[in-house]
Amino acid sequence: MAHWRMSPNLELNQVVDRLNAAGADIMNLAFGESRLPLLPSLADLLTAAAHRTTYGPVAGTPAVREAAAGFLGRRGLPTDPEQVVVAPGSKPLLMAVQLAVPGDVLLPRPCWNSYAPQARLAGKAPIGVPITAEAGGVPDPAALRATIRTARARGLDPRLLICTLPDTPTGTLAPPRLVRAICSIAEDEDLVILSDEIYRDIVHDPGTEFLSPAEVAPHRTVVTNGLSKSMALGGWRIGLARFPAGARGEQIQAGVLGAASDLWSTLAHPMQEVAGYVLGDPPEVRERLAASARLHGSVARTLHTVMVAAGARCRPPTAAFYVYPDFEPLRAPLAALGITDSHSLQQYLFEEYDIAVLAGHKLGDETGALRFKASTSMLYGRTPDEQLEALDSADPAALPHIRRATRRIEAAVADLRSRCLVEDSV
Amino acid sequence: MAHWRMSPNLELNQVVDRLNAAGADIMNLAFGESRLPLLPSLADLLTAAAHRTTYGPVAGTPAVREAAAGFLGRRGLPTDPEQVVVAPGSKPLLMAVQLAVPGDVLLPRPCWNSYAPQARLAGKAPIGVPITAEAGGVPDPAALRATIRTARARGLDPRLLICTLPDTPTGTLAPPRLVRAICSIAEDEDLVILSDEIYRDIVHDPGTEFLSPAEVAPHRTVVTNGLSKSMALGGWRIGLARFPAGARGEQIQAGVLGAASDLWSTLAHPMQEVAGYVLGDPPEVRERLAASARLHGSVARTLHTVMVAAGARCRPPTAAFYVYPDFEPLRAPLAALGITDSHSLQQYLFEEYDIAVLAGHKLGDETGALRFKASTSMLYGRTPDEQLEALDSADPAALPHIRRATRRIEAAVADLRSRCLVEDSV
Repeated sequence: MAHWRMSPNLELNQVVDRLNAAGADIMNLAFGESRLPLLPSLADLLTAAAHRTTYGPVAGTPAVREAAAGFLGRRGLPTDPEQVVVAPGSKPLLMAVQLAVPGDVLLPRPCWNSYAPQARLAGKAPIGVPITAEAGGVPDPAALRATIRTARARGLDPRLLICTLPDTPTGTLAPPRLVRAICSIAEDEDLVILSDEIYRDIVHDPGTEFLSPAEVAPHRTVVTNGLSKSMALGGWRIGLARFPAGARGEQIQAGVLGAASDLWSTLAHPMQEVAGYVLGDPPEVRERLAASARLHGSVARTLHTVMVAAGARCRPPTAAFYVYPDFEPLRAPLAALGITDSHSLQQYLFEEYDIAVLAGHKLGDETGALRFKASTSMLYGRTPDEQLEALDSADPAALPHIRRATRRIEAAVADLRSRCLVEDSV
Repeated sequence: MAHWRMSPNLELNQVVDRLNAAGADIMNLAFGESRLPLLPSLADLLTAAAHRTTYGPVAGTPAVREAAAGFLGRRGLPTDPEQVVVAPGSKPLLMAVQLAVPGDVLLPRPCWNSYAPQARLAGKAPIGVPITAEAGGVPDPAALRATIRTARARGLDPRLLICTLPDTPTGTLAPPRLVRAICSIAEDEDLVILSDEIYRDIVHDPGTEFLSPAEVAPHRTVVTNGLSKSMALGGWRIGLARFPAGARGEQIQAGVLGAASDLWSTLAHPMQEVAGYVLGDPPEVRERLAASARLHGSVARTLHTVMVAAGARCRPPTAAFYVYPDFEPLRAPLAALGITDSHSLQQYLFEEYDIAVLAGHKLGDETGALRFKASTSMLYGRTPDEQLEALDSADPAALPHIRRATRRIEAAVADLRSRCLVEDSV
């Protein structure tokens, strides 16, 4: 533990901020911060809640737990307030669930960069399982069965499976068929599922069917969510978890509350008041969620088009605000530029084009793969006015200030491709 | 980890709140929450900071780190802002330091109830060392040397020593002589010191000399502090840590930032803005700190008198808002009432007198000892008006509403004593 490294997304974000503050103009596609203005009424709510200075219950106040239960119920998960725990972000809740569930942990490969370090802290071996060509966030079912067998043969004890629905880094949503297949394996193998649904309210097409593992395997699935992504409130640190009804769920929840009591006490009380309002889904919040999803989708599709035009393979994004291109088709010519893995690909984009992306190996992917995660969420404008214009637009990617940003990326990867082709033809 | 228990102070607080909400009238001396009204200007600050919705640096914004550096500098610890990390409470920082420093951990016995569970999470053995009759928060120096020897002989590897200055549960402040003795041992034995100074600004007599281990052993001492206790802002979750200058300090800080990035990301951004103001020590904050210390001291001294009158031994409180009485002088007669250890003593007070205290064994003390922690911090009034009156008073313990509270405790322990004497004379 003495040589714990800073998580790569937060670290790179700080590096970019420092360089830009010193006069650089680096485009930050490496950090999943939804940079959109505060919904104005939330400032008033925070003011009204300022006098809440007591600790209160570790799990959260009855009011916020009830609001969260309603929020989850309206999303297909009927919930008793007693099943809910709120916290300063979903990150500490994910950590606490890893502490509360014994055994080792299965992760989609690639996946969000904090699951594996959290697993190691909890004394777990993180076991990566490839995703399908269709969608990320859940493992390929056949690979999952095979990996569990292999892991057990190696003396590991996989007992927890983390899923991300919708997914970071791929910006996709696992379809119901895949979710059912995974849940069936979880039943067969007696796995607890931890379904990270922080991007639940950022599905680009409102008609998309969303199926949570908690609907299919209700007694073995913990769900986490929060306001950081959907409401662009990362800096307010508001997360929640829903534990399964029944004895197993209660045991996991008791372990999480124990860890919470010794690690963070509770979510800041004024933030609980804000969460209680937002989780009630009032009309202005529903409107903001819809506008945000439209914006994220519009820009993510543009970035997808740009990557494919440059020669990459890339799953079409349908949720969240990421694309995860694979430059494997250009492996030979990229090698001539010294780009042989995700690390050198990230470095090249940073040094040649001032574009920061997150190399796939930092997300558990194969080091040799030519993949990276690119977030669209900081491309929506430099000022609140530009960002509001983007939220209000029926075609956000066509706005001049957003086009400038996506064209810069387009020019960079087009230039990369042309350098490849030149090298290749030499 | 699957059977992690809720920390006893937070758990008991929830039980008491639930019972009182259902109509009981339990006096809560078990929880260290300073129940005083919000300093009004902080509500305006929170409002002004509401638009801060970005994550920002894990360690905190440059502004809050600079304010914290000034705060520490004015308290005898010249500090570069780079040495500072803020977090949602000092609790996660204490956890992260235990993760970042290898080896096992030495704790004063008794001590705050979250150090030992955090140690176990970090894979450390918690090693208790008795305190002196004079003050808690640091081990008895002779016992410390002996315990280190014994621990090493048992195959343990003590590398970290946690001190609490001023102390919970004893409400005392280790005098400079004792701090120097401890630091000298830390030098000899190459221990890192983690000095939890969350009660730093609650010293009853403003003339009391405060010596931090960071002044004596600057290159091996990490200091934590926060606004939960001194500013009665527990529910806002604002903590900070100061790391030593030099290579060792930088290594510990890097480990803490790594853990922070995967466990909690950062302190909520609006709270960082509030902290930046309060840590600047403006006049209204200094006045509030002075009034709070006077109030805590006045009521703690009254509780001390009450306990001693009932036949207990008790260190005179000089800081924070606790007393830690020892009913050993009444052991034989208490045994006749079925009270034979701290657990049964806590139970008896709860069941017979509706008074909640925290049994000493939950703080690492010997189970058989007849000791408990009692906090004065929720005795200051049931309404903000009563609490403000208490803050304004030159003699808070003499106010009618506070006298009612302390007399109820007095009556309870006097009755306990009289029951003892009756039993004893049978």
